[in-house]
Amino acid sequence: MATELETGSPSVRQIQEMIREGTEVELKLVTGDLLAGKVRWQDNDCIALVDQYDQVTIVWRQAVVYLKPRVA
Amino acid sequence: MATELETGSPSVRQIQEMIREGTEVELKLVTGDLLAGKVRWQDNDCIALVDQYDQVTIVWRQAVVYLKPRVA
Amino acid sequence: MATELETGSPSVRQIQEMIREGTEVELKLVTGDLLAGKVRWQDNDCIALVDQYDQVTIVWRQAVVYLKPRVA
Amino acid sequence: MATELETGSPSVRQIQEMIREGTEVELKLVTGDLLAGKVRWQDNDCIALVDQYDQVTIVWRQAVVYLKPRVA
Amino acid sequence: MATELETGSPSVRQIQEMIREGTEVELKLVTGDLLAGKVRWQDNDCIALVDQYDQVTIVWRQAVVYLKPRVA
Amino acid sequence: MATELETGSPSVRQIQEMIREGTEVELKLVTGDLLAGKVRWQDNDCIALVDQYDQVTIVWRQAVVYLKPRVA
Repeated sequence: MATELETGSPSVRQIQEMIREGTEVELKLVTGDLLAGKVRWQDNDCIALVDQYDQVTIVWRQAVVYLKPRVA
Repeated sequence: MATELETGSPSVRQIQEMIREGTEVELKLVTGDLLAGKVRWQDNDCIALVDQYDQVTIVWRQAVVYLKPRVA
Repeated sequence: MATELETGSPSVRQIQEMIREGTEVELKLVTGDLLAGKVRWQDNDCIALVDQYDQVTIVWRQAVVYLKPRVA
Repeated sequence: MATELETGSPSVRQIQEMIREGTEVELKLVTGDLLAGKVRWQDNDCIALVDQYDQVTIVWRQAVVYLKPRVA
Repeated sequence: MATELETGSPSVRQIQEMIREGTEVELKLVTGDLLAGKVRWQDNDCIALVDQYDQVTIVWRQAVVYLKPRVA
Repeated sequence: MATELETGSPSVRQIQEMIREGTEVELKLVTGDLLAGKVRWQDNDCIALVDQYDQVTIVWRQAVVYLKPRVA
């Protein structure tokens, strides 16, 4: 059985909201890479990002530095 | 159910105080980036920073190197 | 006895599906390296990748930044 | 309730002693930064350093590479 | 008492097999270093590598990016 | 109370032996630094190194990449 995602913590909840609203985000990674797209799903280990060509990238949480909504 | 933030530890408490007082801080990240702003909230995984344009950045604790109040 | 892999979480399940379907993937690592190949197996610590010469590379999960299916 | 700091382990105890004695230390960080100052407090997550201008820097343990007393 | 190594997981088992068979491997590390040699032993924290001059290097698992058998 | 060091695991035991025998070692760190000296003590979080001038450096285990005895 899988460990449930802690839906009560602010960071998980806010990302959940971004998924529902299709918010464009930027994800900065430990390698210095900056990915842009919409969050499609999250679990305890990963955050999945979809870019404008509908290409999915599964990002490991351990490699995330920061996430921010893109300014329109 | 969410794991509660350990409000008894000095580092969590001091950040909590910075949130209340709206202290300007600098956050150094593992990528070498230096973010500036005010801490808006914290949970077990993240610290949310707001810059002067009211733009929120959710920073993962695992990527934080140090935090210091900005000298006026 | 080994700790079972959490087959219920989306990221583990999707990688499991890529193994079954022989999907070509790219794996970005913390060193900045980008490996290409098919996922052969995964466990709690590692993901094994096989390249076009059938050479196996055992990658530690802790070193993975992101994984994405290669665009044809 | 907060998890208590393990005051029985040598590293925690030695840092506790440096706090009492006001020892000048150098702290090397994963970013390559080298901070100098006196340790003011420590908890399970952080070590707080005070520089010569009485400016506090809260350093995350996860980002510490080494600590050494400064040679006079 | 020591925590037992999880001999049931594929990655631990395959490394155990490489020890028995004296397989030449390459070990990529987070610093970008690439070590070559044979695995002599492994435990929960480390993997010990022996080079051609019988010099032992104790590598921390946390610093391992990938391991692959050397192509003859 | 402090968590006991796992003296049963090979890596801890071998470092314990190096302490007793005063073995000269090289310690490679995640920053790329290479420290040389003798191991004075170890606990669950740190390894303390003493250089030829009897200067102590407390190294965090999390920052260690590899350790090897220096070749005479």
